[in-house]
Amino acid sequence: MRKKLGLIAGGGQFPLKVCDSALKQGYLTVGVGFKDYTDPLLASRVDEFLWVNLGQLGKVIKFLKKNHVQEVIFAGPISKPKALNLRPDFRAAKVLFKLKSLNDGAIFKALIAEFESEGFRVVGPQQFVPDLIAPSGILSFRKPSSIELESFKFGWPILKKIGNLDIGQCLVVKEKIVIAVEGIEGTNATIKRAGELGGKGCVVLKAFKPGQDERIDMPALGLETIKTMIEAKATALFFEAKYSLFFDLDKSLKLANEHGLTIVGIKEGKI
Amino acid sequence: MRKKLGLIAGGGQFPLKVCDSALKQGYLTVGVGFKDYTDPLLASRVDEFLWVNLGQLGKVIKFLKKNHVQEVIFAGPISKPKALNLRPDFRAAKVLFKLKSLNDGAIFKALIAEFESEGFRVVGPQQFVPDLIAPSGILSFRKPSSIELESFKFGWPILKKIGNLDIGQCLVVKEKIVIAVEGIEGTNATIKRAGELGGKGCVVLKAFKPGQDERIDMPALGLETIKTMIEAKATALFFEAKYSLFFDLDKSLKLANEHGLTIVGIKEGKI
Repeated sequence: MRKKLGLIAGGGQFPLKVCDSALKQGYLTVGVGFKDYTDPLLASRVDEFLWVNLGQLGKVIKFLKKNHVQEVIFAGPISKPKALNLRPDFRAAKVLFKLKSLNDGAIFKALIAEFESEGFRVVGPQQFVPDLIAPSGILSFRKPSSIELESFKFGWPILKKIGNLDIGQCLVVKEKIVIAVEGIEGTNATIKRAGELGGKGCVVLKAFKPGQDERIDMPALGLETIKTMIEAKATALFFEAKYSLFFDLDKSLKLANEHGLTIVGIKEGKI
Repeated sequence: MRKKLGLIAGGGQFPLKVCDSALKQGYLTVGVGFKDYTDPLLASRVDEFLWVNLGQLGKVIKFLKKNHVQEVIFAGPISKPKALNLRPDFRAAKVLFKLKSLNDGAIFKALIAEFESEGFRVVGPQQFVPDLIAPSGILSFRKPSSIELESFKFGWPILKKIGNLDIGQCLVVKEKIVIAVEGIEGTNATIKRAGELGGKGCVVLKAFKPGQDERIDMPALGLETIKTMIEAKATALFFEAKYSLFFDLDKSLKLANEHGLTIVGIKEGKI
């Protein structure tokens, strides 16, 4: 009997990529999409599909069980500002009510626990999209300057401590000054603001939150990150290798190289 | 012989208030103003005055010494984004070069140490403007709701930890979610952003950074804070009592009351 993968899909192309890969690996796929978030294309690719509103946790679990799903994967972002208006059903309310914090990490941990308590195995994206796992090392033609390296060394431990508080994944630094800290606005908005505040030469850091679960909340980077950096006149990007997803890596590096950016994957805190 | 106070003046009305109070207390006043920051009115109120550019530390110290200043006070904000273009003179460069961080707290500590190494006594604003020291307790007609109280209890320890990292003084929270973290953009910009991201009902927290020196970097609140909160549809303000300055307190409370805001001064972490 073919294994069944329950695909809980947020926005963007990522759920489609995961779906295609799962099909290739011989899975039957059961998709759940959120109205206003998920690409409707997904419905035609999966074997079974259900539209829900954000917050309808009971309905999702019931649907996955009915379809005898064994493994569950969460793929694709849910924009946090929009999600603030969610209407939790009874089951979601029960989960949320128990939480001391509703920051991302806390919610994701609780979600994983809730699915596991129902006997599902929650899997990460690594086995389905290994090519999206962000590599380590200096990926751009240009190496970081000594000032950019100093900004990385200054900012990275601060970002890890902010991550410990389960706040943002992104920090923008310029010459030993913290310019901008990500809240729920997302990385691109944070980079844009930093450009307005700090001017040319900002350094963007994006890290995995210590103690979080890489099955849901991997930092995501891509062409849009590079475009936003160019617009904001930021010159360097240091990101968490292995625990981040880098979409359109080749195109992103090409664009970064054309604009003289330096792009560095950090592994275990080091270049 | 009359004592001499060296008044190093940033923007706004605060330096003028300190100056008037010092004159009343019998001081001779020696003012230093920064081009593009300091109200030119100050020049006519002090006994001696010097304009400098931001970063001319050697010139400031020489001027204060020539005028036999014993006590020095820093009053009035310097907008950080604008200050990023400063050109340090030799002495300022020496101070900045030694620092591992150029966040506010680190710079202020180094400045105090530099002035003290020259024999100046750096004093806080408390003795000159005791009426501006923010009081504790529930100051508004409306008491905080249980949800607002929960937001305070959730956010205050997080803000203190961010303060430990010497980042911002302001955090905006909504129902156990961190909406916005202050970087160098300032409190009002942070509140505005939070309103756009989180919608109605945000709770604004503003705290003194643990381990910082209250002689320079007291959190400042006032009419503009309340106006920004109203615009952003934030409903509650919790601030650090005793270690904050609250400008135009009566007018601010009147406006807050007209709009049903709750305003609470926190003392030693408690209401």
